[in-house]
Amino acid sequence: MAKEKKLVEAITSMDTDFAQWYTDVVKKAELIDYSSVRGCMIIKPYGYAIWELIQKQLDQRFKDTGHENVYMPMFIPESLLQKEKDHVEGFAPEVAWVTHGGEDKLTEKLCVRPTSETLFCDHYANIIQSYRDLPKLYNQWCSVVRWEKTTRPFLRSLEFLWQEGHTAHATAEEAEEETIKMLNVYSEFCENILAIPMVKGQKTEKEKFAGAKATYTIESLMHDGKALQSGTSHNFGDGFAKAFGIQYTDKENKLQYVHQTSWGMTTRLIGAVIMVHGDDSGLVLPPAIAPVEVIIVPIMQKKEGVLEKAEELRQNLQKFARVKVDSTDKSPGWKFAEYEMKGVPVRLEIGPKDIENNQAVLVRRDNRDKKIISLDNLEAEVKELLDIMQKELFEKALGHRNSHTYTAQNMEEFTEIVDNTPGFVKAMWCKDEACELSIKEQTGATARCMPFEQEKVSDKCVCCGKPADTLVYWGRAY
Amino acid sequence: MAKEKKLVEAITSMDTDFAQWYTDVVKKAELIDYSSVRGCMIIKPYGYAIWELIQKQLDQRFKDTGHENVYMPMFIPESLLQKEKDHVEGFAPEVAWVTHGGEDKLTEKLCVRPTSETLFCDHYANIIQSYRDLPKLYNQWCSVVRWEKTTRPFLRSLEFLWQEGHTAHATAEEAEEETIKMLNVYSEFCENILAIPMVKGQKTEKEKFAGAKATYTIESLMHDGKALQSGTSHNFGDGFAKAFGIQYTDKENKLQYVHQTSWGMTTRLIGAVIMVHGDDSGLVLPPAIAPVEVIIVPIMQKKEGVLEKAEELRQNLQKFARVKVDSTDKSPGWKFAEYEMKGVPVRLEIGPKDIENNQAVLVRRDNRDKKIISLDNLEAEVKELLDIMQKELFEKALGHRNSHTYTAQNMEEFTEIVDNTPGFVKAMWCKDEACELSIKEQTGATARCMPFEQEKVSDKCVCCGKPADTLVYWGRAY
Repeated sequence: MAKEKKLVEAITSMDTDFAQWYTDVVKKAELIDYSSVRGCMIIKPYGYAIWELIQKQLDQRFKDTGHENVYMPMFIPESLLQKEKDHVEGFAPEVAWVTHGGEDKLTEKLCVRPTSETLFCDHYANIIQSYRDLPKLYNQWCSVVRWEKTTRPFLRSLEFLWQEGHTAHATAEEAEEETIKMLNVYSEFCENILAIPMVKGQKTEKEKFAGAKATYTIESLMHDGKALQSGTSHNFGDGFAKAFGIQYTDKENKLQYVHQTSWGMTTRLIGAVIMVHGDDSGLVLPPAIAPVEVIIVPIMQKKEGVLEKAEELRQNLQKFARVKVDSTDKSPGWKFAEYEMKGVPVRLEIGPKDIENNQAVLVRRDNRDKKIISLDNLEAEVKELLDIMQKELFEKALGHRNSHTYTAQNMEEFTEIVDNTPGFVKAMWCKDEACELSIKEQTGATARCMPFEQEKVSDKCVCCGKPADTLVYWGRAY
Repeated sequence: MAKEKKLVEAITSMDTDFAQWYTDVVKKAELIDYSSVRGCMIIKPYGYAIWELIQKQLDQRFKDTGHENVYMPMFIPESLLQKEKDHVEGFAPEVAWVTHGGEDKLTEKLCVRPTSETLFCDHYANIIQSYRDLPKLYNQWCSVVRWEKTTRPFLRSLEFLWQEGHTAHATAEEAEEETIKMLNVYSEFCENILAIPMVKGQKTEKEKFAGAKATYTIESLMHDGKALQSGTSHNFGDGFAKAFGIQYTDKENKLQYVHQTSWGMTTRLIGAVIMVHGDDSGLVLPPAIAPVEVIIVPIMQKKEGVLEKAEELRQNLQKFARVKVDSTDKSPGWKFAEYEMKGVPVRLEIGPKDIENNQAVLVRRDNRDKKIISLDNLEAEVKELLDIMQKELFEKALGHRNSHTYTAQNMEEFTEIVDNTPGFVKAMWCKDEACELSIKEQTGATARCMPFEQEKVSDKCVCCGKPADTLVYWGRAY
């Protein structure tokens, strides 16, 4: 058991230093490695397998709602980036510029896409002529680059993987409907697949996307009480359409501008999973995104029949779950610690005694509940355990969020909460940007969103005391 | 039928101008569109759906052979690119350089990856210590950039999508085994899924990959008699390992260099599918990569019961095939032409008369065979038709390749073939690079490969007449 202890001891505890704990988990669970390129990470096989499961299940949702995948160039000519004024102001300071191709200096420099609104708009201007061409419901899976000064694995990196939906509609109503529909797809996915509860709402003017009319967001709360923006959905109105000349002739043969949306989620979702479900033994994965849902650890595996039995169980379980047998020569204790670190939801132990008694031992990763079950019921038991774990991880995260969501009537209360019991702060706001800026300056907290589910926790702005009827979720955020 | 004719007439015939025919198909079948970025293409929904089917089936083969997916940064620092001498010489002239991030000039410029050997080597040097860490069997799906002067959709573009496998092994034998194994995976995939016959062989010294010890290739023949390199697999020996210091301690505790491989296939495979199977009505897709395998066209669809029946048939067929009903208000003739252009393998027509007779009309895209079949046998008939079409497309392509593969004993014969009956030229070579260069200069043909299946078509070099015992497939190539 010495090795096992060593492995577990090697990570910092969450309470001692949450940031260090996070970095330790990311590294020890073999999710990423650092590269020779500042701020760019290498996503290792285990991390990438999680991303593939996220991709697959999210992509299915996009297809089920009528979206099609496309691929746009990774470069944007400077003149194209500049077409929409707010957009270029928001992104130009943080893009990477390609100035040379081979040995030649380019006549126009190209930026590596930080997001692809301008490319989609340019394409839409070419392919949309008539109302019959609408709606266009496109999505793209790709990597994007933003020249960040400080970076953290999954949460903020120079390059990250994401999907970006870009749609064009005949009317403002349809665009708004799409924006909300995709926010709901995101929220449902995060809650059911990642087991992370979301607050849905609208971003303030200050926090909205560069070039958008309205930005909607889903916000989650990490274990340390900090918020994480988990996905955003933007309604562009006809702003981009006017800048790029995207027009169609309607049924009355009149020229109209299209109304557009975009929406995106990224590899930072993996960061959210780590920080919501993880513990001092490492990662805890919801079964729906676990590359291995059940790890079978043979006990006294050199005894006759043990490995054969383990393999037989694997074949039975793999009909409905991702299962692996670890028959390497490491000790069972070492294996237990390794798969705990990697967050594998269920461990199945099977040894000579178990075989004799027609049983196996099941251990849940999240609460370490141990259960001896008959092999006759194995499939049903494992299936149920995975379902229950998926559900209970969500409930636990919801409980944590609820117990870390506070209400503040004034700045004294606000500061007290942020400093001593980090979490979401629900407080009223007068909609004056000056108050938003002042709150940030005083507390470091930003407006996470104006939630769809509004309440009246007071009738005064938490900052200036003037009448206010907008509830905002505030918090320090990643 | 006026619109139908118009659509069909809109593409150039293959015999008139093969290059223009290709461009027309690419555009009219809605595979790609041009973008504002020189040499970069937009892959449209239909083109991307084909790529997704290629990806999915290829990725499954990689996983079945024990490979894991990862993601590396898209940037390579200049110093890293320069570590392996031959490699940098091969790629530096054709990379895009990022010189600025945000508003700052970078202290070291970064190239956008043209291929990722250097990044994988850098990573392997960090993570490989012991023989227990081997083999490493990694693959990556991503886009890469090569600053090409002239570009053509799918065949040669500044940016393209691909997969790149990168593996590290303990011994030279294992690396060679992997290199050949993956070449065989590629070949099997191309023949069974894309229905394109391949010639397997080794590249000459001149044509091998920059930094490789040996490059193996699969070569196919397009309808116009030009060759297309369809996939390559490289054995690096320990060259990169020495340049990057990738060493492990073996079982005897001695330090050894690893032996490496890499292998890649790209979106140019879609170009191959177009140029091998297409005809004057447009694209012809093998069922295995057809986004729509069966298009149901209702006839007199306003008559009661027709659309309902079409939908019922769709539901029955979608259990085993990708099926769509086109119930738009376009005429059946227009629809016929549209789906022919898009290469949909099977068209199913169903109208009031058919319903009355409990039958449907099935039309094959490739040879236009029309068959009236009973609805009682529909599923079995469609399934069989798709299987037969997949098989016959391969056989037809094989027949074309065989009838366009020639033997040359001397340069007179060689030139005669290349000029008048383009195809593969089988001819002996003395292994002197001077002859290889001379052949290229005289004929425009390059050494496609030294095939694994060697024959002795003569005992003299086709160029210099000196003794020669190496058979080479030559050809003008894309």
